[in-house]
Order: sequence, then C-alpha cells, then structure tokens
Amino acid sequence: MLPESKVGSTEETNGANLCALMGACPLPLSDYQEIVLAHGSGGKLSQQLIQEILLPQFRNELLDVQHDGAVFSVNGARLAFSTDSFVVSPIFFPGGDIGKLAVHGTVNDLAMCGARPLYLSTGFILEEGLSMRDFWRVVVSMREAAAAAGVALVTGDTKVVDRGKADKIFINTSGIGVVPERVNIHPGRARTGDKVIVSGEIAVHGIAIMSVREGLEFETEISSDTAPLNGLVHAVLAVGTDIHVLRDPTRGGISSALSEIALSAHVGISLDEASIPISEEVKGACEILGLDPLYVANEGKFLAIVAAEEVAPVLAAMRAHPLGEKAAVIGSVTDDHRGFVFMKTRIGGTRVVEMLSGEQLPRIC
Amino acid sequence: MLPESKVGSTEETNGANLCALMGACPLPLSDYQEIVLAHGSGGKLSQQLIQEILLPQFRNELLDVQHDGAVFSVNGARLAFSTDSFVVSPIFFPGGDIGKLAVHGTVNDLAMCGARPLYLSTGFILEEGLSMRDFWRVVVSMREAAAAAGVALVTGDTKVVDRGKADKIFINTSGIGVVPERVNIHPGRARTGDKVIVSGEIAVHGIAIMSVREGLEFETEISSDTAPLNGLVHAVLAVGTDIHVLRDPTRGGISSALSEIALSAHVGISLDEASIPISEEVKGACEILGLDPLYVANEGKFLAIVAAEEVAPVLAAMRAHPLGEKAAVIGSVTDDHRGFVFMKTRIGGTRVVEMLSGEQLPRIC
Repeated sequence: MLPESKVGSTEETNGANLCALMGACPLPLSDYQEIVLAHGSGGKLSQQLIQEILLPQFRNELLDVQHDGAVFSVNGARLAFSTDSFVVSPIFFPGGDIGKLAVHGTVNDLAMCGARPLYLSTGFILEEGLSMRDFWRVVVSMREAAAAAGVALVTGDTKVVDRGKADKIFINTSGIGVVPERVNIHPGRARTGDKVIVSGEIAVHGIAIMSVREGLEFETEISSDTAPLNGLVHAVLAVGTDIHVLRDPTRGGISSALSEIALSAHVGISLDEASIPISEEVKGACEILGLDPLYVANEGKFLAIVAAEEVAPVLAAMRAHPLGEKAAVIGSVTDDHRGFVFMKTRIGGTRVVEMLSGEQLPRIC
Repeated sequence: MLPESKVGSTEETNGANLCALMGACPLPLSDYQEIVLAHGSGGKLSQQLIQEILLPQFRNELLDVQHDGAVFSVNGARLAFSTDSFVVSPIFFPGGDIGKLAVHGTVNDLAMCGARPLYLSTGFILEEGLSMRDFWRVVVSMREAAAAAGVALVTGDTKVVDRGKADKIFINTSGIGVVPERVNIHPGRARTGDKVIVSGEIAVHGIAIMSVREGLEFETEISSDTAPLNGLVHAVLAVGTDIHVLRDPTRGGISSALSEIALSAHVGISLDEASIPISEEVKGACEILGLDPLYVANEGKFLAIVAAEEVAPVLAAMRAHPLGEKAAVIGSVTDDHRGFVFMKTRIGGTRVVEMLSGEQLPRIC
C-alpha cells in the first residue's frame, strides 16, 4: 500500500549519517539558513517549507492533496484525520483560551474535510513552573469545548520541559472523523463558475489576540470568534449536494486560504471587497494596527466554494444557524489569472491578493 | 454516543469564568501549585496529574482504559488511535534523533494496542533560529523511519515560536491503526498465573541519551534502542492467541509500566531480577550514573503479559525476530500484593518496585 523504501529499513542509521554516506539527499535550496517566524505564518514561507522540505520527503497521494486533513478508507470506513498544534500567546484571551482553540481547531479541520468529528487526542507540552491553576483552567475549557462540539478526548500525552524551554503550554490535538460517502471536498475541486461564500465576519480572532497583546482598548471588547464549525458544516452539507471546497481561513487569513485553493485547483478567484463581511470595530482596529483584514486569522469562520446553483440553499442554511448569520457571497471562481486571487476594491480598482508574505501576527493560534 | 453536557454548550464562556460564576469546578487538591519536571516523568507525579486533573475532566469509557491508545469501532472498522509529543534533548543522539523517535513512538503505541499502524500525523513546533539543515535532517529521518515501519505520514502542521520560547524542535505524532477482530489487549487484562515477558535488554535508550548529555565515554558507544515494534508484535500475535497486555516501557522504565498494569488490573506482579536482560555496558553506565535500570526509558522494547501456556510460542517468535533475540520471561502475575510490583533480587531478598518518584531523566523522549 505504501511506497517501498530500502533506505533505513534494515540498518540503524539516522538521516544525516545515511546522507553523508550516500552523498545523497542534499538539503533543498532555501532562501533561509534558519527557521524564521514567518515559516509558521500560514503564508508564503509556510508554503515554501511545505513545498521544499516536507512534501518532497513525505510525498504520498494523501498528503499531496494538501487539505486540512487526510481522507482515506479503512476496512470500508471513510475517515478524515487531522492534526494541529497550538502555541497562542497569551493563553487566555477575550472569547477563549488555548484549550478551546485546540479543540475547535481540529474539530474545524475535520469539518473542512466534510467529516463528522468523533474523537480527539491531546498532547500537552508544559513548561516547568506553569501554575497548576492555569493548566486546570485550560483542561476545563477543553472539556467544555469538546462537549459542545460533540467529540470525545480519548487519548493523550503530557510532556514537561524545563523552565525557559517552552512558553507555559503548547497543545497538539489530532482528530478522527467519519466522512459521508457522497461527500467529496478538497481544495483541488474549485472550478470556473463556482461561487465563494464566507460564513461570517472576518478577521475577528486575530484582532482579539492583537488587542490584548498590545493593550488596546476599544469601546466594545473584541472577542475571538473561536467556535466549533461542525454543526454549521453539517447544516450546509444537508442542503448542498455540490459543495466543492471548504476551508477555515486561520493563520494567513482569507487571502492565504484562497491563494492556496487557486494554486491547488489551478483556477482564478475573483473577490468583491464590498461584499466581504467585517464589523466596524474590527475594521477600525485593523486601521489602527496597520493590518489588512484579509490576512488576519479567523477561528470560527469558513470559506465554501460551491456550484453556482447551490448558493441559494447553502446561504439560507448558513444564515439560519447562529454561527452563519452574516454569511455572504464574496467572489467567484474564474478561468482568468489561474493560480491567483484578484479583488475588485471598494473604490473600483482591481488588485492582486497575494498570500501573506512575512509574518504579521506570530503565535495567533 | 458522548456524554451530554449542558455546560458551555451554548454560551461563549471559558472554564475559569464559568467556574467563577457557578462556584463549581474547584481546582482539585494537589501537592503542587506549579507544574514540575516530574509531572512529565511517566512516574508517580505523571499519574497524579492524570488522575486528579485530566481524567476527572475528560472521563469517558475509552480514556478510562488508560492504554497506550484508544481502541474503538467506526462504521465497522476496529481502530486504534494514539498520540505522543517528543521533546528529547539533544535532538540528535547515538542511534537516532527526535524524528526517528517521534515515528517509532506512535507506531509502538499503536502496536501495544495490538493494532497494525497505518497512518501518522506530524505536528512540528519549531523555535525561531533552528537551522534549516537540522530541521531537514529530522524530516529525512522521519521519512526513513516511516518507510521502515510501513506507515505513511499523511497530514501535518508546523508552528514557529519566537527564539527562547521552545527548544529547537518539538514533534507531536498521532497515529491510526487497525485492530484485528480477535485481538483484545489492554492493561486491565493481566490475570493471576500470567507470565511477564520483556522483548530484550532494558534501559538502553535512557543511558544513550544520558551518556551524550553528560559527555560520558564508554569503551563501546551505547546507542539508543529506538525501533519500530510493529513487526515484532505482528509476529507475536501470529503465534499467541491469548496475549493479555502489551506495553512499551518508555518514560519511567519497566518499573513504572508494570506498576501501572498492577494498578489497572488489580493484580500483583512478581519479578525475578536475575532474569531481566541487561547488557554489561548499560549496567555499568547505570552504576556510574547512579541510576536504577528498572526506571530508565526504553524505546525499542516491550513487555508482554500472556497466559502461561503461550510463553513457549511467544518467546520462540520473539527470539526469531532481530528485535526480540534477547527476549526473556522476567516474572509472573500473582494474587498476592494486588496493585504492587515485587522483585526477588539477585542476592535473594525481595523488594517492592515502586513507580518512579520524582524525575531522574527529564526530556528523555
């Protein structure tokens, strides 16, 4: 089933020794000699790391799909499998905490595969000195988030590292969901004529984190939008029979998510700025902070790319759900400018929307 | 399927706020106000964290088994699911590296459930400044280890944290395997009259790490025993029809693993020190370092608790495999001293073998 490899299968060699011996496996060309924060941005450098270092080594047909999770069958059961690590700072923020984010993150990645999330694992890396009370608050929050999302945390692991070798708490969650037979959702399925829908107001999570980090105060507190999206996705799949792509635009925002889809599906994506839902508070905060909301992380929204005839029922189903009330069509898939995202701006011009370059909001999730 | 919870299901509250409001969910009594290294030791304090903080919150029938992974059925497929984070320091060591360890660790946890490992996820947390070459060496090593173990890395995630907020690289792997119908392996199944088998010489991994960390030099270099155990377990399951427990004694060594089993199954375990395989080099190193080999981590060995009549075929199958040549019966399950492990020492006495208390080898995996 898996590609055979003679390398390393019989001898106790590690990568470096082996490559030195063989004079093979050269370090791929890279613009960077060291890891920089932007390699974790969800934007261009994240893509470069994936394309140059990770995919060439781990290449297989499941990974090559570059979806939010892998979808495969085991003994007749069609499953989705996904993983995410969470390093957000601060660990408690308006509207949530790292525990809630960790549960929602993997629930949502599974939902983006069209799966019904069932089981999560949780791997804690704790820094010596973390207060027991903070750890316990995070654990309680994870329990609540799992119960609300209808998933069970069934296996786990805890490591502790010495003081100064981590930052309070990092959490990995991985998850398994079951994918209904008729569902076939992945980034390569976007096609000309499809419409792009966003499930609600963008850029909320990133601004909530930034405002607490920078000590900004607004008239009304901006709370993270972190939420489990499996219920909303379930509602969409119940009415839409031709859903092509689902993607939650976390790190790198909707611009990076749509750029990835444009590349994967080899299509153009045309956006209409005026139609993108954003609250006045978030828009104002973005202006103060000098951030483009298209690049700011979301944790409770998703993009759906659907056949044009599915727009009416999908939009109606979303708007009937508390997490999708402000859903809107924000663009369409074109055969112009394949591989790129374009946007008609509010003032009537057109600009290319590139993937995030550099890192504007490190450790946002 | 999952326990219903009204708490947190409709409101955007986090654990702390909710508990403050309700005056409920008190922080459980704990001897520690802060996380200490020993909470990650695999010994007593790890157990305390699990029993006092984690299990009471996440309680469900799968987690309660306290196995190396969770075993459940999805649409008729019987699956195992496991997770582990790796924080070993240094990241390269004799016989392996953090990448190889991360692949073997989850492959082995699945194998300990009697599962055939199929798919792994990998979540990287990278420290800004990690050299690209070191990252790439780790990735190459993971590819080799996955190929040798016959598993595919199918989904992943990469986060980067600022310099000084992690230590080079942490890796989480989670995995899915398929469990044959007739297999029923978990720590609660040990019963009086069973025999305890170890698959080879103990304490090798911990000593390999410690010797490089402490700059010790021995006549022959002690290399980590890190290895994928799924092939050896497969060979055992092919001949043994009454295998009750499998457990890889990583952090905390064979003493902590057997103590957990004695508690889970409410049985006594009696060991015979003279029969426990250990190399002269490792024994000597333990003496120099003042370590008890029963508490030192293994990464390529497992304990099998089997019905007495299975000993001969299981031992023969192990010894015919390159990773099990030195397999030996080291003890038996008794109805005396339930919940405890006892050992007949070389000099003829008997002592209680407790779970690791404190932390002797932090960040060993």
